[in-house]
Amino acid sequence: MIIAQELDLNWKNVKRCIENWIKNYFFTNKIRKVVVGISGGVDSAVVASLTKNALGRGKVIGILLPEKGVTPKTDRKDMKKIVELLRVDFLEIEISKLVKNFIEAFPLVKGDLLAYGNLKPRIRMTLLYAIANVNRALVVGTSDRSEYYLGYFTKFGDGAADIFPLLGLYKTQIKELGRFLKLPRAIIDKTPSPGLWKGQTAEKELGISYEVADRIFFYKKDFPILYGKVYSNEKIAKIIGINKYLIELVENRGKNTMHKRALPPSPPIPYPYFTWKKS
Amino acid sequence: MIIAQELDLNWKNVKRCIENWIKNYFFTNKIRKVVVGISGGVDSAVVASLTKNALGRGKVIGILLPEKGVTPKTDRKDMKKIVELLRVDFLEIEISKLVKNFIEAFPLVKGDLLAYGNLKPRIRMTLLYAIANVNRALVVGTSDRSEYYLGYFTKFGDGAADIFPLLGLYKTQIKELGRFLKLPRAIIDKTPSPGLWKGQTAEKELGISYEVADRIFFYKKDFPILYGKVYSNEKIAKIIGINKYLIELVENRGKNTMHKRALPPSPPIPYPYFTWKKS
Repeated sequence: MIIAQELDLNWKNVKRCIENWIKNYFFTNKIRKVVVGISGGVDSAVVASLTKNALGRGKVIGILLPEKGVTPKTDRKDMKKIVELLRVDFLEIEISKLVKNFIEAFPLVKGDLLAYGNLKPRIRMTLLYAIANVNRALVVGTSDRSEYYLGYFTKFGDGAADIFPLLGLYKTQIKELGRFLKLPRAIIDKTPSPGLWKGQTAEKELGISYEVADRIFFYKKDFPILYGKVYSNEKIAKIIGINKYLIELVENRGKNTMHKRALPPSPPIPYPYFTWKKS
Repeated sequence: MIIAQELDLNWKNVKRCIENWIKNYFFTNKIRKVVVGISGGVDSAVVASLTKNALGRGKVIGILLPEKGVTPKTDRKDMKKIVELLRVDFLEIEISKLVKNFIEAFPLVKGDLLAYGNLKPRIRMTLLYAIANVNRALVVGTSDRSEYYLGYFTKFGDGAADIFPLLGLYKTQIKELGRFLKLPRAIIDKTPSPGLWKGQTAEKELGISYEVADRIFFYKKDFPILYGKVYSNEKIAKIIGINKYLIELVENRGKNTMHKRALPPSPPIPYPYFTWKKS
Protein backbone atom coordinates (compact mmCIF):
# COMPACT_ATOMS: atom_id res chain seq x y z
CA MET A 1 0.00 0.00 0.00
CA ILE A 2 1.12 3.51 -0.81
CA ILE A 3 -0.12 6.30 1.48
CA ALA A 4 -2.65 8.74 0.01
CA GLN A 5 -0.86 11.76 -1.39
CA GLU A 6 -2.67 14.20 0.90
CA LEU A 7 -1.38 12.37 3.95
CA ASP A 8 2.22 12.00 2.88
CA LEU A 9 4.72 13.88 5.01
CA ASN A 10 8.44 14.45 5.20
CA TRP A 11 9.04 11.51 7.52
CA LYS A 12 12.55 12.48 8.47
CA ASN A 13 11.22 15.78 9.82
CA VAL A 14 8.26 14.12 11.51
CA LYS A 15 10.56 11.65 13.25
CA ARG A 16 12.93 14.39 14.37
CA CYS A 17 10.16 16.66 15.68
CA ILE A 18 8.35 13.96 17.67
CA GLU A 19 11.60 12.68 19.16
CA ASN A 20 12.63 16.20 20.11
CA TRP A 21 9.22 16.81 21.63
CA ILE A 22 9.54 13.68 23.80
CA LYS A 23 13.08 14.59 24.83
CA ASN A 24 12.07 18.13 25.70
CA TYR A 25 9.07 17.01 27.78
CA PHE A 26 11.17 14.41 29.56
CA PHE A 27 13.99 16.75 30.55
CA THR A 28 11.87 19.82 31.27
CA ASN A 29 9.84 17.77 33.72
CA LYS A 30 12.83 15.96 35.25
CA ILE A 31 11.44 12.50 34.53
CA ARG A 32 13.53 9.43 35.31
CA LYS A 33 12.00 6.72 33.16
CA VAL A 34 9.08 5.91 30.90
CA VAL A 35 6.91 2.84 30.49
CA VAL A 36 5.26 1.97 27.17
CA GLY A 37 2.63 -0.72 26.72
CA ILE A 38 3.59 -2.87 23.72
CA SER A 39 0.67 -4.66 22.03
CA GLY A 40 2.27 -6.07 18.93
CA GLY A 41 0.46 -3.43 16.84
CA VAL A 42 1.96 -0.64 14.80
CA ASP A 43 1.11 2.32 17.09
CA SER A 44 2.91 0.98 20.14
CA ALA A 45 5.86 -0.24 18.03
CA VAL A 46 6.31 3.26 16.56
CA VAL A 47 5.90 4.98 19.95
CA ALA A 48 8.40 2.66 21.58
CA SER A 49 10.88 3.19 18.78
CA LEU A 50 10.62 7.01 18.83
CA THR A 51 10.79 7.07 22.64
CA LYS A 52 13.88 4.92 22.67
CA ASN A 53 15.53 7.12 20.00
CA ALA A 54 14.64 10.21 22.02
CA LEU A 55 15.76 9.05 25.47
CA GLY A 56 18.15 6.16 24.98
CA ARG A 57 17.34 2.56 25.72
CA GLY A 58 18.17 2.78 29.43
CA LYS A 59 15.16 5.04 30.06
CA VAL A 60 12.46 2.92 28.43
CA ILE A 61 10.63 -0.07 29.91
CA GLY A 62 8.40 -2.00 27.51
CA ILE A 63 5.33 -3.52 29.18
CA LEU A 64 3.75 -6.59 27.59
CA LEU A 65 0.21 -7.29 28.80
CA PRO A 66 -1.16 -10.19 26.75
CA GLU A 67 -4.36 -12.04 27.59
CA LYS A 68 -4.32 -15.81 27.40
CA GLY A 69 -6.89 -17.16 24.95
CA VAL A 70 -7.52 -13.70 23.45
CA THR A 71 -4.23 -12.11 22.37
CA PRO A 72 -3.22 -13.90 19.13
CA LYS A 73 0.06 -15.83 19.10
CA THR A 74 1.39 -13.56 16.37
CA ASP A 75 0.87 -10.51 18.62
CA ARG A 76 2.67 -12.23 21.50
CA LYS A 77 5.56 -12.96 19.17
CA ASP A 78 5.56 -9.42 17.77
CA MET A 79 5.58 -7.81 21.25
CA LYS A 80 8.75 -9.71 22.05
CA LYS A 81 10.20 -8.90 18.65
CA ILE A 82 9.82 -5.17 19.30
CA VAL A 83 11.50 -5.13 22.71
CA GLU A 84 14.29 -7.34 21.35
CA LEU A 85 14.74 -5.10 18.34
CA LEU A 86 14.91 -1.98 20.51
CA ARG A 87 16.92 -3.79 23.21
CA VAL A 88 14.93 -2.13 26.02
CA ASP A 89 14.07 -3.63 29.40
CA PHE A 90 10.69 -5.25 29.46
CA LEU A 91 8.18 -6.80 31.82
CA GLU A 92 5.42 -9.22 30.83
CA ILE A 93 2.24 -9.73 32.85
CA GLU A 94 -0.52 -12.00 31.61
CA ILE A 95 -3.87 -10.35 32.42
CA SER A 96 -6.42 -13.17 32.02
CA LYS A 97 -6.46 -13.91 35.74
CA LEU A 98 -7.19 -10.27 36.56
CA VAL A 99 -9.98 -10.23 33.97
CA LYS A 100 -11.42 -13.34 35.62
CA ASN A 101 -11.16 -11.74 39.08
CA PHE A 102 -13.15 -8.70 37.95
CA ILE A 103 -15.80 -10.91 36.37
CA GLU A 104 -16.06 -12.81 39.65
CA ALA A 105 -16.46 -9.53 41.52
CA PHE A 106 -19.13 -8.29 39.10
CA PRO A 107 -20.44 -11.16 36.95
CA LEU A 108 -22.79 -9.06 34.79
CA VAL A 109 -19.72 -7.82 32.86
CA LYS A 110 -19.56 -11.17 31.13
CA GLY A 111 -22.84 -10.80 29.24
CA ASP A 112 -22.16 -7.22 28.13
CA LEU A 113 -19.72 -6.64 25.29
CA LEU A 114 -19.36 -2.90 26.05
CA ALA A 115 -18.48 -3.52 29.71
CA TYR A 116 -16.37 -6.57 28.88
CA GLY A 117 -14.40 -4.80 26.16
CA ASN A 118 -13.75 -1.69 28.27
CA LEU A 119 -12.66 -3.71 31.30
CA LYS A 120 -9.41 -4.90 29.76
CA PRO A 121 -7.87 -1.56 28.76
CA ARG A 122 -8.67 -0.29 32.28
CA ILE A 123 -6.93 -3.28 33.86
CA ARG A 124 -3.95 -2.64 31.56
CA MET A 125 -3.92 1.06 32.49
CA THR A 126 -3.98 0.17 36.19
CA LEU A 127 -1.03 -2.19 35.74
CA LEU A 128 0.92 0.31 33.60
CA TYR A 129 0.53 2.98 36.27
CA ALA A 130 1.43 0.58 39.09
CA ILE A 131 4.64 -0.30 37.24
CA ALA A 132 5.25 3.36 36.40
CA ASN A 133 4.69 4.44 40.02
CA VAL A 134 7.16 1.89 41.35
CA ASN A 135 9.74 3.08 38.80
CA ARG A 136 8.82 6.77 39.22
CA ALA A 137 8.19 6.65 35.48
CA LEU A 138 5.88 8.37 32.99
CA VAL A 139 3.23 6.36 31.12
CA VAL A 140 3.52 6.92 27.38
CA GLY A 141 0.23 6.50 25.51
CA THR A 142 -0.04 5.03 22.03
CA SER A 143 -3.31 6.51 20.71
CA ASP A 144 -3.32 7.95 17.20
CA ARG A 145 -5.25 10.81 15.61
CA SER A 146 -7.67 8.51 13.74
CA GLU A 147 -8.72 6.58 16.84
CA TYR A 148 -8.90 9.80 18.79
CA TYR A 149 -11.32 11.56 16.42
CA LEU A 150 -13.38 8.38 16.01
CA GLY A 151 -13.51 7.96 19.81
CA TYR A 152 -12.28 4.44 19.18
CA PHE A 153 -10.59 3.93 22.55
CA THR A 154 -11.56 3.24 26.15
CA LYS A 155 -11.96 6.33 28.33
CA PHE A 156 -9.54 5.96 31.28
CA GLY A 157 -8.22 2.79 29.62
CA ASP A 158 -5.94 3.08 26.58
CA GLY A 159 -7.14 6.68 26.45
CA ALA A 160 -5.32 7.31 29.75
CA ALA A 161 -1.60 8.08 29.81
CA ASP A 162 0.73 10.96 30.71
CA ILE A 163 1.73 11.89 27.16
CA PHE A 164 0.52 10.92 23.67
CA PRO A 165 3.38 11.32 21.19
CA LEU A 166 1.38 10.03 18.19
CA LEU A 167 -1.84 11.98 18.66
CA GLY A 168 -0.97 14.29 15.76
CA LEU A 169 -0.69 11.47 13.21
CA TYR A 170 -3.38 9.45 11.45
CA LYS A 171 -3.16 5.66 11.47
CA THR A 172 -2.02 5.47 7.83
CA GLN A 173 0.65 8.07 8.59
CA ILE A 174 1.89 6.03 11.54
CA LYS A 175 2.20 3.01 9.29
CA GLU A 176 4.23 5.09 6.85
CA LEU A 177 6.40 6.37 9.71
CA GLY A 178 6.83 2.73 10.80
CA ARG A 179 8.13 1.94 7.31
CA PHE A 180 10.51 4.89 7.50
CA LEU A 181 11.73 3.56 10.89
CA LYS A 182 12.27 0.16 9.24
CA LEU A 183 10.05 -1.68 11.73
CA PRO A 184 9.12 -5.28 10.84
CA ARG A 185 6.70 -5.46 7.89
CA ALA A 186 4.51 -8.03 9.68
CA ILE A 187 3.78 -5.44 12.38
CA ILE A 188 3.18 -2.58 9.96
CA ASP A 189 0.88 -4.54 7.67
CA LYS A 190 -1.05 -6.24 10.48
CA THR A 191 -4.84 -5.77 10.48
CA PRO A 192 -5.54 -3.18 13.24
CA SER A 193 -7.39 -4.54 16.29
CA PRO A 194 -7.85 -3.45 19.92
CA GLY A 195 -7.58 -7.17 20.75
CA LEU A 196 -10.38 -7.08 23.32
CA TRP A 197 -12.05 -10.28 22.12
CA LYS A 198 -11.15 -13.00 19.67
CA GLY A 199 -11.46 -12.03 16.03
CA GLN A 200 -12.13 -8.32 16.71
CA THR A 201 -10.85 -6.03 13.96
CA ALA A 202 -11.00 -2.25 14.08
CA GLU A 203 -12.18 -1.59 10.54
CA LYS A 204 -15.01 -4.14 10.68
CA GLU A 205 -16.21 -2.72 13.99
CA LEU A 206 -15.93 0.89 12.79
CA GLY A 207 -17.57 0.17 9.45
CA ILE A 208 -14.83 2.06 7.60
CA SER A 209 -11.19 1.52 6.64
CA TYR A 210 -8.50 3.77 8.09
CA GLU A 211 -7.40 4.62 4.55
CA VAL A 212 -10.79 6.17 3.88
CA ALA A 213 -11.35 7.61 7.38
CA ASP A 214 -7.95 9.33 7.32
CA ARG A 215 -8.65 10.95 3.95
CA ILE A 216 -12.04 12.14 5.24
CA PHE A 217 -10.36 13.63 8.32
CA PHE A 218 -7.79 15.30 6.10
CA TYR A 219 -10.49 17.06 4.06
CA LYS A 220 -12.56 17.94 7.14
CA LYS A 221 -9.84 18.97 9.59
CA ASP A 222 -6.62 19.80 7.75
CA PHE A 223 -7.59 21.00 4.28
CA PRO A 224 -9.47 24.10 5.50
CA ILE A 225 -6.39 25.16 7.48
CA LEU A 226 -3.90 24.32 4.72
CA TYR A 227 -5.84 25.87 1.84
CA GLY A 228 -8.42 28.17 3.42
CA LYS A 229 -11.34 26.35 1.78
CA VAL A 230 -14.15 24.23 3.24
CA TYR A 231 -15.49 21.50 0.94
CA SER A 232 -19.01 20.07 1.24
CA ASN A 233 -19.45 16.40 2.11
CA GLU A 234 -20.61 15.80 -1.46
CA LYS A 235 -17.42 17.27 -2.87
CA ILE A 236 -15.22 15.35 -0.43
CA ALA A 237 -17.04 12.10 -1.24
CA LYS A 238 -16.43 12.73 -4.94
CA ILE A 239 -12.71 13.50 -4.48
CA ILE A 240 -12.12 10.37 -2.40
CA GLY A 241 -14.47 8.28 -4.51
CA ILE A 242 -16.72 7.07 -1.69
CA ASN A 243 -20.37 7.18 -0.69
CA LYS A 244 -21.31 10.30 1.29
CA TYR A 245 -22.76 8.19 4.11
CA LEU A 246 -19.21 7.21 5.14
CA ILE A 247 -18.47 10.87 5.91
CA GLU A 248 -21.63 11.07 8.00
CA LEU A 249 -20.63 7.88 9.80
CA VAL A 250 -17.29 9.45 10.73
CA GLU A 251 -18.97 12.70 11.77
CA ASN A 252 -21.46 10.86 13.97
CA ARG A 253 -18.73 8.85 15.66
CA GLY A 254 -16.97 12.13 16.37
CA LYS A 255 -20.07 13.79 17.84
CA ASN A 256 -21.08 10.82 19.98
CA THR A 257 -17.64 10.50 21.58
CA MET A 258 -16.92 14.16 22.32
CA HIS A 259 -16.91 13.49 26.07
CA LYS A 260 -13.90 11.21 25.60
CA ARG A 261 -11.77 14.08 24.29
CA ALA A 262 -12.56 16.64 26.99
CA LEU A 263 -12.00 17.08 30.69
CA PRO A 264 -15.14 15.99 32.57
CA PRO A 265 -17.54 18.93 32.97
CA SER A 266 -18.59 20.49 36.28
CA PRO A 267 -20.96 23.31 37.28
CA PRO A 268 -19.58 26.87 37.37
CA ILE A 269 -17.78 28.08 40.47
CA PRO A 270 -20.41 29.89 42.55
CA TYR A 271 -19.55 33.59 42.48
CA PRO A 272 -21.48 36.06 44.60
CA TYR A 273 -23.51 37.70 41.88
CA PHE A 274 -25.79 34.76 42.39
CA THR A 275 -24.80 32.76 45.42
CA TRP A 276 -22.24 34.40 47.68
CA LYS A 277 -23.72 35.76 50.90
CA LYS A 278 -21.70 38.98 51.18
CA SER A 279 -20.74 40.72 47.99
CA MET B 1 -17.17 24.53 63.42
CA ILE B 2 -18.51 27.60 61.63
CA ILE B 3 -17.40 28.16 58.04
CA ALA B 4 -15.03 31.08 57.37
CA GLN B 5 -17.01 34.16 56.39
CA GLU B 6 -15.29 34.46 53.00
CA LEU B 7 -16.43 30.97 52.04
CA ASP B 8 -20.02 31.26 53.15
CA LEU B 9 -22.58 31.05 50.37
CA ASN B 10 -26.32 31.16 49.93
CA TRP B 11 -26.73 27.40 50.27
CA LYS B 12 -30.26 27.30 48.98
CA ASN B 13 -29.09 28.83 45.71
CA VAL B 14 -26.01 26.62 45.56
CA LYS B 15 -28.15 23.53 46.03
CA ARG B 16 -30.62 24.63 43.38
CA CYS B 17 -27.95 25.52 40.79
CA ILE B 18 -25.98 22.29 41.16
CA GLU B 19 -29.13 20.19 41.03
CA ASN B 20 -30.33 22.06 37.93
CA TRP B 21 -26.91 21.63 36.35
CA ILE B 22 -27.03 17.85 36.90
CA LYS B 23 -30.60 17.64 35.60
CA ASN B 24 -29.74 19.67 32.53
CA TYR B 25 -26.66 17.59 31.72
CA PHE B 26 -28.61 14.38 32.22
CA PHE B 27 -31.52 15.29 29.97
CA THR B 28 -29.54 17.14 27.30
CA ASN B 29 -27.37 14.05 26.85
CA LYS B 30 -30.26 11.56 27.06
CA ILE B 31 -28.69 9.58 29.92
CA ARG B 32 -30.61 6.70 31.49
CA LYS B 33 -29.00 6.27 34.87
CA VAL B 34 -26.08 7.36 37.02
CA VAL B 35 -23.77 5.49 39.38
CA VAL B 36 -22.14 7.22 42.36
CA GLY B 37 -19.39 5.69 44.47
CA ILE B 38 -20.29 6.13 48.15
CA SER B 39 -17.32 6.12 50.53
CA GLY B 40 -18.91 7.13 53.80
CA GLY B 41 -17.27 10.56 53.49
CA VAL B 42 -18.93 13.92 53.10
CA ASP B 43 -18.19 14.55 49.39
CA SER B 44 -19.87 11.40 48.12
CA ALA B 45 -22.79 11.82 50.54
CA VAL B 46 -23.44 15.35 49.24
CA VAL B 47 -23.04 14.32 45.58
CA ALA B 48 -25.40 11.38 46.03
CA SER B 49 -27.95 13.57 47.77
CA LEU B 50 -27.88 16.33 45.12
CA THR B 51 -27.99 13.77 42.30
CA LYS B 52 -30.97 12.04 43.81
CA ASN B 53 -32.76 15.38 44.28
CA ALA B 54 -32.00 16.30 40.68
CA LEU B 55 -32.99 13.04 38.98
CA GLY B 56 -35.25 11.15 41.37
CA ARG B 57 -34.25 8.05 43.27
CA GLY B 58 -35.02 5.65 40.41
CA LYS B 59 -32.12 7.01 38.35
CA VAL B 60 -29.36 6.70 40.94
CA ILE B 61 -27.36 3.59 41.86
CA GLY B 62 -25.08 3.93 44.89
CA ILE B 63 -21.91 1.84 44.63
CA LEU B 64 -20.20 0.76 47.86
CA LEU B 65 -16.61 -0.42 47.39
CA PRO B 66 -15.13 -1.06 50.83
CA GLU B 67 -11.83 -2.84 51.41
CA LYS B 68 -11.70 -5.47 54.14
CA GLY B 69 -9.14 -4.63 56.80
CA VAL B 70 -8.68 -1.07 55.52
CA THR B 71 -12.06 0.68 55.29
CA PRO B 72 -13.03 1.55 58.89
CA LYS B 73 -16.22 0.00 60.31
CA THR B 74 -17.71 3.47 60.76
CA ASP B 75 -17.30 4.17 57.02
CA ARG B 76 -18.95 0.87 56.14
CA LYS B 77 -21.86 1.78 58.38
CA ASP B 78 -22.04 5.32 56.99
CA MET B 79 -22.08 4.11 53.34
CA LYS B 80 -25.13 2.02 54.14
CA LYS B 81 -26.69 4.86 56.10
CA ILE B 82 -26.48 7.17 53.06
CA VAL B 83 -28.10 4.78 50.58
CA GLU B 84 -30.79 3.97 53.14
CA LEU B 85 -31.41 7.63 53.83
CA LEU B 86 -31.71 8.42 50.11
CA ARG B 87 -33.57 5.17 49.41
CA VAL B 88 -31.61 4.55 46.19
CA ASP B 89 -30.63 1.17 44.74
CA PHE B 90 -27.17 0.11 45.72
CA LEU B 91 -24.54 -2.50 45.01
CA GLU B 92 -21.69 -3.46 47.32
CA ILE B 93 -18.45 -5.06 46.13
CA GLU B 94 -15.62 -5.74 48.53
CA ILE B 95 -12.32 -4.92 46.76
CA SER B 96 -9.65 -6.58 48.93
CA LYS B 97 -9.51 -9.66 46.70
CA LEU B 98 -8.92 -7.53 43.61
CA VAL B 99 -6.19 -5.61 45.43
CA LYS B 100 -4.58 -8.93 46.32
CA ASN B 101 -4.84 -10.14 42.71
CA PHE B 102 -3.02 -7.06 41.41
CA ILE B 103 -0.31 -7.47 44.03
CA GLU B 104 0.12 -11.08 42.93
CA ALA B 105 0.37 -9.95 39.31
CA PHE B 106 2.95 -7.25 40.17
CA PRO B 107 4.34 -7.82 43.68
CA LEU B 108 6.55 -4.69 43.78
CA VAL B 109 3.40 -2.63 44.40
CA LYS B 110 3.37 -3.89 47.95
CA GLY B 111 6.58 -2.17 49.00
CA ASP B 112 5.71 1.16 47.39
CA LEU B 113 3.20 3.41 49.12
CA LEU B 114 2.67 5.59 46.02
CA ALA B 115 1.88 2.59 43.79
CA TYR B 116 -0.08 0.84 46.52
CA GLY B 117 -2.19 3.91 47.34
CA ASN B 118 -2.96 4.69 43.68
CA LEU B 119 -3.89 1.10 42.86
CA LYS B 120 -7.10 1.12 44.87
CA PRO B 121 -8.83 4.17 43.36
CA ARG B 122 -8.01 2.74 39.90
CA ILE B 123 -9.57 -0.60 40.82
CA ARG B 124 -12.62 1.29 42.10
CA MET B 125 -12.83 3.36 38.90
CA THR B 126 -12.65 0.18 36.81
CA LEU B 127 -15.49 -1.37 38.81
CA LEU B 128 -17.60 1.80 38.71
CA TYR B 129 -17.29 1.96 34.91
CA ALA B 130 -18.02 -1.77 34.52
CA ILE B 131 -21.22 -1.30 36.53
CA ALA B 132 -22.02 1.91 34.65
CA ASN B 133 -21.44 0.26 31.26
CA VAL B 134 -23.76 -2.63 32.09
CA ASN B 135 -26.44 -0.14 33.17
CA ARG B 136 -25.69 2.32 30.32
CA ALA B 137 -25.14 4.81 33.14
CA LEU B 138 -22.97 7.85 33.75
CA VAL B 139 -20.25 7.81 36.43
CA VAL B 140 -20.65 10.75 38.80
CA GLY B 141 -17.37 11.89 40.37
CA THR B 142 -17.08 13.20 43.91
CA SER B 143 -13.90 15.34 43.81
CA ASP B 144 -14.03 18.78 45.38
CA ARG B 145 -12.27 22.04 44.54
CA SER B 146 -9.78 21.77 47.43
CA GLU B 147 -8.58 18.28 46.47
CA TYR B 148 -8.53 19.31 42.84
CA TYR B 149 -6.23 22.33 43.32
CA LEU B 150 -4.03 20.40 45.75
CA GLY B 151 -3.82 17.50 43.27
CA TYR B 152 -4.88 15.29 46.16
CA PHE B 153 -6.50 12.55 44.08
CA THR B 154 -5.42 9.63 41.90
CA LYS B 155 -5.12 10.42 38.18
CA PHE B 156 -7.46 8.02 36.33
CA GLY B 157 -8.67 6.77 39.72
CA ASP B 158 -11.01 8.94 41.79
CA GLY B 159 -9.99 11.73 39.41
CA ALA B 160 -11.78 9.84 36.61
CA ALA B 161 -15.54 10.19 36.12
CA ASP B 162 -17.97 11.56 33.54
CA ILE B 163 -19.10 14.62 35.52
CA PHE B 164 -17.89 16.34 38.70
CA PRO B 165 -20.80 18.19 40.30
CA LEU B 166 -18.79 19.40 43.33
CA LEU B 167 -15.66 20.64 41.59
CA GLY B 168 -16.71 24.26 42.14
CA LEU B 169 -16.91 23.95 45.94
CA TYR B 170 -14.14 23.80 48.53
CA LYS B 171 -14.18 21.02 51.13
CA THR B 172 -15.38 23.31 53.93
CA GLN B 173 -18.16 24.56 51.64
CA ILE B 174 -19.25 21.00 50.92
CA LYS B 175 -19.45 20.32 54.65
CA GLU B 176 -21.61 23.42 55.04
CA LEU B 177 -23.79 22.28 52.13
CA GLY B 178 -24.03 18.87 53.81
CA ARG B 179 -25.35 20.62 56.95
CA PHE B 180 -27.86 22.51 54.84
CA LEU B 181 -28.96 19.19 53.30
CA LYS B 182 -29.37 17.80 56.83
CA LEU B 183 -27.02 14.88 56.22
CA PRO B 184 -25.93 12.89 59.30
CA ARG B 185 -23.57 14.88 61.53
CA ALA B 186 -21.22 11.91 61.94
CA ILE B 187 -20.55 11.98 58.18
CA ILE B 188 -20.14 15.75 57.97
CA ASP B 189 -17.80 15.99 60.94
CA LYS B 190 -15.72 12.92 60.02
CA THR B 191 -11.96 13.44 59.62
CA PRO B 192 -11.34 13.48 55.83
CA SER B 193 -9.36 10.50 54.49
CA PRO B 194 -8.90 8.82 51.09
CA GLY B 195 -8.98 5.53 53.05
CA LEU B 196 -6.14 3.97 51.06
CA TRP B 197 -4.36 2.56 54.08
CA LYS B 198 -5.16 2.19 57.75
CA GLY B 199 -4.94 5.40 59.74
CA GLN B 200 -4.44 7.67 56.69
CA THR B 201 -5.87 11.16 57.15
CA ALA B 202 -5.92 13.83 54.48
CA GLU B 203 -4.85 16.79 56.58
CA LYS B 204 -1.89 14.98 58.15
CA GLU B 205 -0.70 13.82 54.74
CA LEU B 206 -1.17 17.25 53.17
CA GLY B 207 0.44 19.09 56.07
CA ILE B 208 -2.42 21.59 56.20
CA SER B 209 -6.05 21.67 57.31
CA TYR B 210 -8.81 22.21 54.76
CA GLU B 211 -10.01 25.18 56.78
CA VAL B 212 -6.72 26.95 56.16
CA ALA B 213 -6.17 25.63 52.61
CA ASP B 214 -9.64 26.76 51.54
CA ARG B 215 -9.08 30.27 52.88
CA ILE B 216 -5.74 30.43 51.06
CA PHE B 217 -7.43 29.33 47.83
CA PHE B 218 -10.11 31.95 48.37
CA TYR B 219 -7.53 34.75 48.59
CA LYS B 220 -5.44 33.39 45.70
CA LYS B 221 -8.18 32.31 43.26
CA ASP B 222 -11.47 34.04 44.11
CA PHE B 223 -10.62 37.32 45.79
CA PRO B 224 -8.87 38.84 42.75
CA ILE B 225 -11.96 38.12 40.63
CA LEU B 226 -14.45 39.27 43.24
CA TYR B 227 -12.66 42.46 44.26
CA GLY B 228 -10.14 43.17 41.50
CA LYS B 229 -7.18 43.10 43.90
CA VAL B 230 -4.25 40.70 44.23
CA TYR B 231 -2.83 40.36 47.74
CA SER B 232 0.76 39.27 48.43
CA ASN B 233 1.40 36.03 50.30
CA GLU B 234 2.54 38.12 53.29
CA LYS B 235 -0.75 39.98 53.38
CA ILE B 236 -2.82 36.78 52.94
CA ALA B 237 -0.86 35.05 55.72
CA LYS B 238 -1.57 38.02 57.99
CA ILE B 239 -5.31 38.09 57.22
CA ILE B 240 -5.70 34.36 57.84
CA GLY B 241 -3.29 34.39 60.79
CA ILE B 242 -0.94 31.70 59.50
CA ASN B 243 2.71 31.27 58.62
CA LYS B 244 3.55 32.24 55.02
CA TYR B 245 5.15 28.84 54.39
CA LEU B 246 1.67 27.25 54.38
CA ILE B 247 0.77 29.36 51.34
CA GLU B 248 3.95 28.22 49.60
CA LEU B 249 3.14 24.62 50.50
CA VAL B 250 -0.25 24.97 48.80
CA GLU B 251 1.29 26.71 45.78
CA ASN B 252 3.89 23.99 45.39
CA ARG B 253 1.29 21.23 45.59
CA GLY B 254 -0.62 23.04 42.85
CA LYS B 255 2.43 23.41 40.59
CA ASN B 256 3.61 19.82 41.04
CA THR B 257 0.23 18.34 40.16
CA MET B 258 -0.66 20.48 37.14
CA HIS B 259 -0.56 17.42 34.85
CA LYS B 260 -3.47 15.92 36.82
CA ARG B 261 -5.75 18.80 35.87
CA ALA B 262 -5.04 18.87 32.13
CA LEU B 263 -5.57 16.64 29.13
CA PRO B 264 -2.33 14.72 28.44
CA PRO B 265 -0.07 16.70 26.10
CA SER B 266 0.96 15.63 22.60
CA PRO B 267 3.22 17.12 19.89
CA PRO B 268 1.68 19.59 17.43
CA ILE B 269 -0.11 18.26 14.36
CA PRO B 270 2.47 18.29 11.53
CA TYR B 271 1.43 20.97 9.05
CA PRO B 272 3.26 21.40 5.77
CA TYR B 273 5.11 24.58 6.58
CA PHE B 274 7.53 22.25 8.21
CA THR B 275 6.72 18.65 7.41
CA TRP B 276 4.11 18.18 4.68
CA LYS B 277 5.59 17.09 1.37
CA LYS B 278 3.45 19.18 -0.99
CA SER B 279 2.35 22.61 0.15
